[in-house]
Amino acid sequence: MINDASLLVQPDEYGLLTDLYQLTMAACYVGEGLDQRRASFELFVRRLPEGFGYLIAAGLASALDYLEKFQFTPEQLAALQATDIFTGATAEFWHLLASGRFCGDVWAVPEGTAIFANEPILRVEAPLWQAQIVETYLLNAINYQTLIATRAARLRDVAGPEAKLLEFGTRRAFSPQASLWAARAALAGGLDATSNVLAALKLGRKPVGTMAHALVMAITALEGSETDSFEAFHRYFPGAALLIDTYDTVAAAQRLGKKMPEALAGVRLDSGDLVTLSQQVRQELPEVPIFASGDLDEQEIWRLRQAGACIDGYGLGTKLVTGSPVNGVYKLTDIDGIPVMKESSGKFTYPGRKQIFRSASGDRLGLATESAPTDAEELLIPVMRHGQRLEHVETLDTIRTRASQSVAQLPETVRDVSHPEVPQAEISTALQTLTDCTRRSQLATVS
Amino acid sequence: MINDASLLVQPDEYGLLTDLYQLTMAACYVGEGLDQRRASFELFVRRLPEGFGYLIAAGLASALDYLEKFQFTPEQLAALQATDIFTGATAEFWHLLASGRFCGDVWAVPEGTAIFANEPILRVEAPLWQAQIVETYLLNAINYQTLIATRAARLRDVAGPEAKLLEFGTRRAFSPQASLWAARAALAGGLDATSNVLAALKLGRKPVGTMAHALVMAITALEGSETDSFEAFHRYFPGAALLIDTYDTVAAAQRLGKKMPEALAGVRLDSGDLVTLSQQVRQELPEVPIFASGDLDEQEIWRLRQAGACIDGYGLGTKLVTGSPVNGVYKLTDIDGIPVMKESSGKFTYPGRKQIFRSASGDRLGLATESAPTDAEELLIPVMRHGQRLEHVETLDTIRTRASQSVAQLPETVRDVSHPEVPQAEISTALQTLTDCTRRSQLATVS
Repeated sequence: MINDASLLVQPDEYGLLTDLYQLTMAACYVGEGLDQRRASFELFVRRLPEGFGYLIAAGLASALDYLEKFQFTPEQLAALQATDIFTGATAEFWHLLASGRFCGDVWAVPEGTAIFANEPILRVEAPLWQAQIVETYLLNAINYQTLIATRAARLRDVAGPEAKLLEFGTRRAFSPQASLWAARAALAGGLDATSNVLAALKLGRKPVGTMAHALVMAITALEGSETDSFEAFHRYFPGAALLIDTYDTVAAAQRLGKKMPEALAGVRLDSGDLVTLSQQVRQELPEVPIFASGDLDEQEIWRLRQAGACIDGYGLGTKLVTGSPVNGVYKLTDIDGIPVMKESSGKFTYPGRKQIFRSASGDRLGLATESAPTDAEELLIPVMRHGQRLEHVETLDTIRTRASQSVAQLPETVRDVSHPEVPQAEISTALQTLTDCTRRSQLATVS
Repeated sequence: MINDASLLVQPDEYGLLTDLYQLTMAACYVGEGLDQRRASFELFVRRLPEGFGYLIAAGLASALDYLEKFQFTPEQLAALQATDIFTGATAEFWHLLASGRFCGDVWAVPEGTAIFANEPILRVEAPLWQAQIVETYLLNAINYQTLIATRAARLRDVAGPEAKLLEFGTRRAFSPQASLWAARAALAGGLDATSNVLAALKLGRKPVGTMAHALVMAITALEGSETDSFEAFHRYFPGAALLIDTYDTVAAAQRLGKKMPEALAGVRLDSGDLVTLSQQVRQELPEVPIFASGDLDEQEIWRLRQAGACIDGYGLGTKLVTGSPVNGVYKLTDIDGIPVMKESSGKFTYPGRKQIFRSASGDRLGLATESAPTDAEELLIPVMRHGQRLEHVETLDTIRTRASQSVAQLPETVRDVSHPEVPQAEISTALQTLTDCTRRSQLATVS
């Protein structure tokens, strides 16, 4: 079981990719004879991240891939038994883990859809023990990819449809796999391309890139001048932008304007006052696209555009792929037909199996058993039944188009990237009634 | 090349796990005949993250694992060629990629060592093309693991040596692999255990956990009361803490004080005013360890302790494994014996191959060729020569002990988790002289 130092995840390790308490709770359910009870869990956020008016759902493809492959190998079960944690567990528990593939149903909002607080992105209906164990991975998959797709959609929205938006975050992403997930979700949310070669090839895309300071410094030192470095790189990669801020940005642009024989595909600025520098570079190289990079985010791009910066494309890294997370949670809402809710201070949840009804007048959060209001769309659709995927995997282009249309339909006040209005779904009468009733019922029985 | 939706990374994909520009620059170096020139790159941070007085280096084991496995398969090279990006590249470039395993030397600060701004955590000396391509992965590995190890060390420092500190971040980590890296680095930095089952087993540790609200809600609904849920879980896992905040924390503690037959291993609070609630729970259950969780970080733990909370252990998740990154960079400092430096606005770097000299009076950043001052320790040690690892992999316990000793040796002002003093290494006379000289030399040649 002890692996190499890079802690790569293998496809047959999905069962163990969970918090210990999911397994101990499953063992308790088995011991109590409750493991096959039908449970509904819903995945949603209580609050959007600070400064966000909406989220773009993403990560469903990974979640379904996980559920299809979920299993425990005999070696893994032996390793669990060797921990001495499960001495109270029954033989039936080990049998369930050994035999159990995920056999539940899943409803989900399609990737690329805008969603809001308290709206389920996904619902799992499955035997209690299974629905419990899969919580950790499902949250891991949806939380991060939704964050990145949302940031990408916001970036696209402030940068405008013509801007080139490039994902450059691999060096700052939180592990290699995070860099791949970030690349996929960024493309799904509205970015144009990624510099991550492995991600691009896995996703069937062409990777992109410019050049780095190291090349300028190495060739300047070895061959004599910054201009030598530009000419050398341009010789092999005439389609790539040149990085011109290693020593003196404006001087470099002036020299390029005088000496560069062929048309330049672009220049990149990675430091300094991007407003002034981009205007000066535009003066020197009026026909050349200007790319900017260096800790940029949607607020900074908004500021640059307001200030009249002459920038045609942006490299997005650190502030796209790291930072505060989407804090999705996964809560039991119904067990064997009994609606349940959490009443912890500040962490209240709505009971019951829910549906999101979206119409021109806004979202209504209701029960899955309610009829949709006239003209309303039901956002949660079945995506897996009895552990079998119901639809083909959507392409990134499909998801990206949906994300773009989702954002375009939102009010400008919700799309504001600094101080957005934060929509709250209306609660249907049926859901409100169930909530009141469940609270009274729980009050009577908790003691 | 197109993979499943979970975008798992396989060990033979390390070569492609890089930014495109590393490969295009390598092709340019080959075309210019510069690819075999000896390059030194150093990995360091320009500034510590906000509120941090030190970093605890981590991630070297992953970095070395990567360098040992770095390669390109024939299929991967075919996929690169099919992108049409490299039409200007020479046959020699493809030959190099096909045949090239990493053959350079690496110096590094051992994992668990406290380091500061501008101090190299790692230096790569290798043929220019190789040293260039490995940048992306090395930064990915060191940046994240250093962040987590540092946060873990800060958490241990404020929580005290007796507190139980448990890593619960998997559901919020940025991809499954991030959760494994976070678990390893958290243990290296000073936490006691992780709830991530796969991580624990890969690291040879015992996973830990309590219970979740879902179990309380499910058994309360199916069997009649919260007490039933506690008794059921305790029956199978008497060593696990019970989660008592699902409905009414103090009432739950009172009932446990009256009815629980056996000694309780602990209770967990996950919401509400943790100061008041923990004091009330201590009144009801004076002998029972109290665990707290819910968006905790080192500042909040400091506040809880100052306010007299009765908490014996902490579950750390979201604010341990996500957030603002360590922004390490990897910069060319010497090419074929010629020292180089970047002079971009706000992104100045020191030239030359460096060494960190640590003594009781503080750190001095000097040249690798300088003699160590009396009583000073040289922090950068050789860890790989000609692509071969020089030392055995260190155990987590070794690294953790080093981290603990590193922190203990720092002044209290540097260990402050809110407004620390931020030490700056003294620059040696030789390094300052080289810096001035390099700047003059570059000024003369960049144009």
